[in-house]
Amino acid sequence: MAEHLFRIAEIEIDPAQIEQYKALLKEEVEASLQLEPGVLFLQAVALKDAPNNIRVFECYADEAAYQHHITTPHFLKYKMATSHMVKLLRLMEANPIAVQAKA
Amino acid sequence: MAEHLFRIAEIEIDPAQIEQYKALLKEEVEASLQLEPGVLFLQAVALKDAPNNIRVFECYADEAAYQHHITTPHFLKYKMATSHMVKLLRLMEANPIAVQAKA
Repeated sequence: MAEHLFRIAEIEIDPAQIEQYKALLKEEVEASLQLEPGVLFLQAVALKDAPNNIRVFECYADEAAYQHHITTPHFLKYKMATSHMVKLLRLMEANPIAVQAKA
Repeated sequence: MAEHLFRIAEIEIDPAQIEQYKALLKEEVEASLQLEPGVLFLQAVALKDAPNNIRVFECYADEAAYQHHITTPHFLKYKMATSHMVKLLRLMEANPIAVQAKA
């Protein structure tokens, strides 16, 4: 997996708009996995103790797959539709230590 | 996936011991996936811009699988061997919004 690109997004959402936000994020994740061969996983969760705080753990085949992802219609729709809902956004790149899932 | 248990660990490690720490974490992740049917994924990464900051994104079949996990010999070995390396530890439960991976 040395070439794969790992990213983490930490996002804080306006509490008044959290349900609409989660629906838009879910739609974007599903479209990305279905339509983009280079999107290997997207795992979006809300913290139980701070449910307006979202974490998305992301894996792309490589840098080009990520650069493609952020130009897709479904990503741009999500970005535009949620821009007024996002209070804080922190995007981070990460290096894998051990990334394993059941087959 | 409604019943699955999602957790996120945010861990800051003593910079002088980061390589030993990463080796122990990798060993623990690999043993957990191999030996525990209820551990569905463990994804451990280091932040690129803060390489002593670790994130582990975890999914267990259910609460019982997690409770079993933290009593296994490989987990307890990791916990004891790394206890003096950990400067900060934040453990969080999370609710899934959309958790998808390529088949």
